Amino acid sequence: MSPTAPAASAPAPSKPAAAASGRVFNFSAGPGVLPEDVLKQVQTDVWNIQGTGIGILEHSHRGKLVDKVFAECEADIRALANIPANYKILYLTGGASAQNHMIPMNWMTPGKTGDYLITGHWSEQTYKQAQKLTGKPGYGAANLAVTTADKKHSYIPGDDQIKYSASPAYIHYCSNNTLYGTEWFRIPKTPAGVPLICDASSHMYSRPIDISRYAMVYAGAQKNLGPAGVTLCIIREDFAEAGSKDIPDLLQYRKFIPELSRPNTPPVFAVYVMGLCAKWIIKSGGLAAMQKHNESKAKFIYDAIDAAPSFYQGHAQKDARSLMNITFRLPSDEMTDKFVKEAAAQGMDGLKGHRNVGGIRASCYNAFPVAGCKALGEFMREFARKNG
Amino acid sequence: MSPTAPAASAPAPSKPAAAASGRVFNFSAGPGVLPEDVLKQVQTDVWNIQGTGIGILEHSHRGKLVDKVFAECEADIRALANIPANYKILYLTGGASAQNHMIPMNWMTPGKTGDYLITGHWSEQTYKQAQKLTGKPGYGAANLAVTTADKKHSYIPGDDQIKYSASPAYIHYCSNNTLYGTEWFRIPKTPAGVPLICDASSHMYSRPIDISRYAMVYAGAQKNLGPAGVTLCIIREDFAEAGSKDIPDLLQYRKFIPELSRPNTPPVFAVYVMGLCAKWIIKSGGLAAMQKHNESKAKFIYDAIDAAPSFYQGHAQKDARSLMNITFRLPSDEMTDKFVKEAAAQGMDGLKGHRNVGGIRASCYNAFPVAGCKALGEFMREFARKNG
Repeated sequence: MSPTAPAASAPAPSKPAAAASGRVFNFSAGPGVLPEDVLKQVQTDVWNIQGTGIGILEHSHRGKLVDKVFAECEADIRALANIPANYKILYLTGGASAQNHMIPMNWMTPGKTGDYLITGHWSEQTYKQAQKLTGKPGYGAANLAVTTADKKHSYIPGDDQIKYSASPAYIHYCSNNTLYGTEWFRIPKTPAGVPLICDASSHMYSRPIDISRYAMVYAGAQKNLGPAGVTLCIIREDFAEAGSKDIPDLLQYRKFIPELSRPNTPPVFAVYVMGLCAKWIIKSGGLAAMQKHNESKAKFIYDAIDAAPSFYQGHAQKDARSLMNITFRLPSDEMTDKFVKEAAAQGMDGLKGHRNVGGIRASCYNAFPVAGCKALGEFMREFARKNG
Repeated sequence: MSPTAPAASAPAPSKPAAAASGRVFNFSAGPGVLPEDVLKQVQTDVWNIQGTGIGILEHSHRGKLVDKVFAECEADIRALANIPANYKILYLTGGASAQNHMIPMNWMTPGKTGDYLITGHWSEQTYKQAQKLTGKPGYGAANLAVTTADKKHSYIPGDDQIKYSASPAYIHYCSNNTLYGTEWFRIPKTPAGVPLICDASSHMYSRPIDISRYAMVYAGAQKNLGPAGVTLCIIREDFAEAGSKDIPDLLQYRKFIPELSRPNTPPVFAVYVMGLCAKWIIKSGGLAAMQKHNESKAKFIYDAIDAAPSFYQGHAQKDARSLMNITFRLPSDEMTDKFVKEAAAQGMDGLKGHRNVGGIRASCYNAFPVAGCKALGEFMREFARKNG
């Protein structure tokens, strides 16, 4: 299966996408579209998985079937990014947002400082939780190292803009900004030896990633890796072990290391689907192929923006344009509503931008088909011609 | 659909259950069996739910479809137990185990005491987390009000055995003990006005429950209510509001009250399946019908134990026998292994007891069919005749 395979069976862009499969082009920012092969496998496995006579929702999380599903998921996640053995794969709950308190609880302990880079909504939320805990019993202090709020998070800051504290216990940033549509294409420069934590939720495994540069990378699965309900966390073992032991067990990363993340009942189904998605990425050629796939998809839409610069205004600066979340504005709110309505009539769903940014947001995660991006690009050109 | 309906299509007990539907009798302690009608609905909805052209795993958690799914789930959960309006329905993550720290973080604050009743493994784990936090910055103290460890948690304590502290901020107990197979058939007597918190995970909605007697009832869904990945929490609003505001946002129950439990991305699919299960209980006649259904099921197995008292030894005292988890021992470990193996050959899975108790555990949650209990009861009588 190649990454462009879904395109073949997708409908022609001039007809509603729903015609062929009953399904539309789903541009949702997440939870978002999943590979259709994955959905078909789920349909089989909820009734009876691998001939066990029991569906995937009904298997004991301590049983052999779930052992196998979890181990395969881990092996595939590892293989995709060639993850070193001293990193552990954790399946967490509470979304990426739960990391907002787990991180300071583990490492922003009394006398310690956590440094935060704000480049969008989610990294701001992450900082706000750490800021709220600053100085409370059991906590150190949060330091704001940089923010791009001055230009409404339309760019990625240069290394010279970032002001780290004297000796941070860790540095946190978010590598793709879902709301604003910007993406880091480099890793920020950090002081030697300081653990770097990355929230990669909305572009995890959309392109190659060098895990060895990080102490911890985490991602809510519901963008590129599966359904809502599980957060993938890849953590260097010594960093996990350095976390506070004075906090509740299930808020310590280390407690998820044994038994393939099963200190308690894990979200079995969400991990299972994440495993299917990992297999789909492998079959599609891996992360390098995924990057080409995603670049070619985003190009249809960015080219349509650039072809009508007096009509479409991209939110992100060109060198910071996200391959996953494409944000742009139209001349008026009325025109935006018309755009959303007419696109929906052509089988394109989920295009309305987040209220913080306005306009349109087209999210094109791994499983989003090329045909959908092509269809939107053509629709945009036609819409600008008619209404510009 | 009546609660006994699944029995009609189930295979005859003398043949492997797998023959008819490809499915076996799943006695797993949880995640456990789900209604087959629910699984069939899932098969449809993962591809395209309610004609939206998008599967349930792929819908935005802020969209209209999920709004509807969450609201219907709440309405059905409310209707089943006639829940008063001043109680809120929350969909949490982290399992019932996450409540072990959320509860003391919210209410066992400095100077306050939480009282704990231990009647099995899970209530012991709950107490241990509170005990671990006792005296740490930000916390008060945990008090052990009673434990049934003296007789290996084979009974439910009388009210005269329970020693509450002078002025507890709350009292916690677990109303069905999954591992040991005992169940509370009364609510423990508590000092007037003290909030009572109940972990009802493994028998939630298996029979009628008077929510107004509690400040909070919670249940991991993966026993009677759905798949692993969501914890149902029913909480009195004033009790939620009385929780600490000095703790991270997502550890405060109150933060889940607005927007139908969506302060962040919730486990959409698990809530959706819980909603389908609630509808199935309603169609099956509600909680009173569910109780009769479960009593009739458990009787097949308890009667088989009592019919061969020199061969089968029930773990729970008779007046504390759980309708959900039936635990008993055989004369030897070798005989137990033989029992498990021969039962498996007849399409009965998941019967091996927890290592803390040994022997056999047959879990018969709401969705478990009558035919499976009848089959096991007959198998037990035959097995005792042959081997006793």
